[in-house]
Amino acid sequence: MRVYVSRRYHLSASHRLHAESLSADANREAYGKCNNPYGHGHNYVVEVTFSGDVDPQTGMVADLAQLDQFARQHVLARFDHANLNTLDEFSGVVPTTENFAVVLHGIFAAFAHPGLEKVHVEETENNSFDYAGAGDWPGGGTL
Amino acid sequence: MRVYVSRRYHLSASHRLHAESLSADANREAYGKCNNPYGHGHNYVVEVTFSGDVDPQTGMVADLAQLDQFARQHVLARFDHANLNTLDEFSGVVPTTENFAVVLHGIFAAFAHPGLEKVHVEETENNSFDYAGAGDWPGGGTL
Amino acid sequence: MRVYVSRRYHLSASHRLHAESLSADANREAYGKCNNPYGHGHNYVVEVTFSGDVDPQTGMVADLAQLDQFARQHVLARFDHANLNTLDEFSGVVPTTENFAVVLHGIFAAFAHPGLEKVHVEETENNSFDYAGAGDWPGGGTL
Amino acid sequence: MRVYVSRRYHLSASHRLHAESLSADANREAYGKCNNPYGHGHNYVVEVTFSGDVDPQTGMVADLAQLDQFARQHVLARFDHANLNTLDEFSGVVPTTENFAVVLHGIFAAFAHPGLEKVHVEETENNSFDYAGAGDWPGGGTL
Amino acid sequence: MRVYVSRRYHLSASHRLHAESLSADANREAYGKCNNPYGHGHNYVVEVTFSGDVDPQTGMVADLAQLDQFARQHVLARFDHANLNTLDEFSGVVPTTENFAVVLHGIFAAFAHPGLEKVHVEETENNSFDYAGAGDWPGGGTL
Amino acid sequence: MRVYVSRRYHLSASHRLHAESLSADANREAYGKCNNPYGHGHNYVVEVTFSGDVDPQTGMVADLAQLDQFARQHVLARFDHANLNTLDEFSGVVPTTENFAVVLHGIFAAFAHPGLEKVHVEETENNSFDYAGAGDWPGGGTL
Repeated sequence: MRVYVSRRYHLSASHRLHAESLSADANREAYGKCNNPYGHGHNYVVEVTFSGDVDPQTGMVADLAQLDQFARQHVLARFDHANLNTLDEFSGVVPTTENFAVVLHGIFAAFAHPGLEKVHVEETENNSFDYAGAGDWPGGGTL
Repeated sequence: MRVYVSRRYHLSASHRLHAESLSADANREAYGKCNNPYGHGHNYVVEVTFSGDVDPQTGMVADLAQLDQFARQHVLARFDHANLNTLDEFSGVVPTTENFAVVLHGIFAAFAHPGLEKVHVEETENNSFDYAGAGDWPGGGTL
Repeated sequence: MRVYVSRRYHLSASHRLHAESLSADANREAYGKCNNPYGHGHNYVVEVTFSGDVDPQTGMVADLAQLDQFARQHVLARFDHANLNTLDEFSGVVPTTENFAVVLHGIFAAFAHPGLEKVHVEETENNSFDYAGAGDWPGGGTL
Repeated sequence: MRVYVSRRYHLSASHRLHAESLSADANREAYGKCNNPYGHGHNYVVEVTFSGDVDPQTGMVADLAQLDQFARQHVLARFDHANLNTLDEFSGVVPTTENFAVVLHGIFAAFAHPGLEKVHVEETENNSFDYAGAGDWPGGGTL
Repeated sequence: MRVYVSRRYHLSASHRLHAESLSADANREAYGKCNNPYGHGHNYVVEVTFSGDVDPQTGMVADLAQLDQFARQHVLARFDHANLNTLDEFSGVVPTTENFAVVLHGIFAAFAHPGLEKVHVEETENNSFDYAGAGDWPGGGTL
Repeated sequence: MRVYVSRRYHLSASHRLHAESLSADANREAYGKCNNPYGHGHNYVVEVTFSGDVDPQTGMVADLAQLDQFARQHVLARFDHANLNTLDEFSGVVPTTENFAVVLHGIFAAFAHPGLEKVHVEETENNSFDYAGAGDWPGGGTL
């Protein structure tokens, strides 16, 4: 019985969308008001999904207390109340939420559970982004 | 890196569920209070999902400003504050939210991005409908 | 110990904003797209608030099961899946949500509990209206 | 035209996570505060998804009035305002939400529509679980 | 400049509504399915509101980090993942959400800020309760 | 019949909490992670409430289309996708959400309707702030 478990985390961060490789005009064209030099910010919602067989003894797919501890250490301590542009993960990488989702997927892939399915990031209540890795879904790739 | 981008639009419309090909009794049987001759209405939420590779220069999958302009012109200007039964799209077609999702999928398929995945329509906070086209998912067909 | 109890009900209805006493131009000026002759609709949320002393034996302020029965009979059976313009309550009265809130307050005033405080109506997730009666708050009049 | 129809139900229940086959220490290790001997509870949201062709005459995939009646009889009457640990479904089975999702999937599989896709259960606003049956998705198995 | 600051906390608990002073029949009459002997539960949302002048130097009305610490120690550690009926606060007091709001108001009154205005408790997304103390509002008593 | 009309606007902005008049240590003490030198951000929700008599002809309390135009020009064009610290309104004023609510109240006071009641600002889904002006409520001062 493969069950999917999803858990949501909340973090507040700022970013500026600006590609060094583009001219000022091209940046304004690509990003509009998100190119504002002083940045802006969001309350991001990060939802991570794992799948796996239900352990017949405990009735659980994954240890959510361990997942919370992992998320606090590797996601919240690093990205909550941060300016994404100043972080190493976004050195030379525009901190769009597309790229943020890929970065977060790479982080959660290191959690001690083999069944990472996807990372879903809500930038606003009307905008969201999903990344499921490079493979096929399930196991990555498609929604 | 294929990332999925979803964007939500909000519109208020009215409809009456009534099939011309059915008797009055069969209509009441099929639609219940939704068959009320004077109609009723909803705040619909329309969420469209595209997928594609992340552009390595801009970090984006699709131009959401262009998508918003497309949605304002082809979806909101047409369906927001409208009575669905009076529109050409629903001539001879019962304006159920199933059919509305299919209509909206056909509209978003004309947007200048090849990766349309699906259209999700919320009729109420407890009712929603998804249509992903006729092919296979991804690329259509399944959720 | 005066405690406030609030309960939410959900209904879907359609309306057209049009004042018979105004010209066609003045109607379009006043109501914009809400004056569309075929109407449109909403998922309305109706929240009613009563206050009163907590009964020391039962620990309750009001009988919510009775309130639900009252709301089903006098609010949902009448307004859910209806076209507001066709109802007697809106004969000669434009079915704005301001007026709808006043109508609903009049209905809930007949419920068998003396502590009606206010009626709150959400027309969309961004628009809401409150009516607390003609007196002073508490006991009516102000928020 | 295969359309997916999802419908949400709300129920309040209590549970205690405790495996008879584990020691007291192992139970505390596995379940933390959820192992509290007196239990705790949640407002569960249950969303069931069916898929099928849109009936060309009615424009519908499934009869949602019948689905509601089925859910009231087989889901809400049994699990709403209940203590999950006391029910036969959880005799010898820990009432985790993983197992609850599997139980609910088994119940909805008996509804008179062949296209059950999955059951999604929200335990809190930050925790959710999906079960799509033992086969392939669509048709079960993967999200 | 008196500003109102509100902060929400989330906790999951179970309760059974049953008054020792009432007969079994009267209990069923008063509480319906909430009188089920094995209990049920909710995800409660607790929102507390303080008011005060904005400190001209810090721009703040209250220290929310201290409030969070207070809430973790005095509210969450006590009521989250608990069975309300087993707690001293509800010895001889039916754990209705009316009474829970009064209990929580008494707790927050001990926080080191003089401007407690009210406690708002959501039992479900459709049911909520407010208690503002025994005095006048502001300063207690009315909403 | 005095009815209260509330309307919500959404904006994304960044800020850093830092008082020039305080030492580095005192700033970290007062603001914690919100004092991070590179800032962070939020999706703010701004809800403004006006009250007034219902116009017997139009059934409306205020012209919401005009209010939207006012908000776009004076609130969204200025604060959406901005860094609050760089704006004149926050020159010498720490951009806490308390102060932001007071600033927004001052702006909405210039709207062509006499019945401004309060401004409510949500910084996150768990944090909100209300300002009702210096007078009495209604008419200002209390919630």
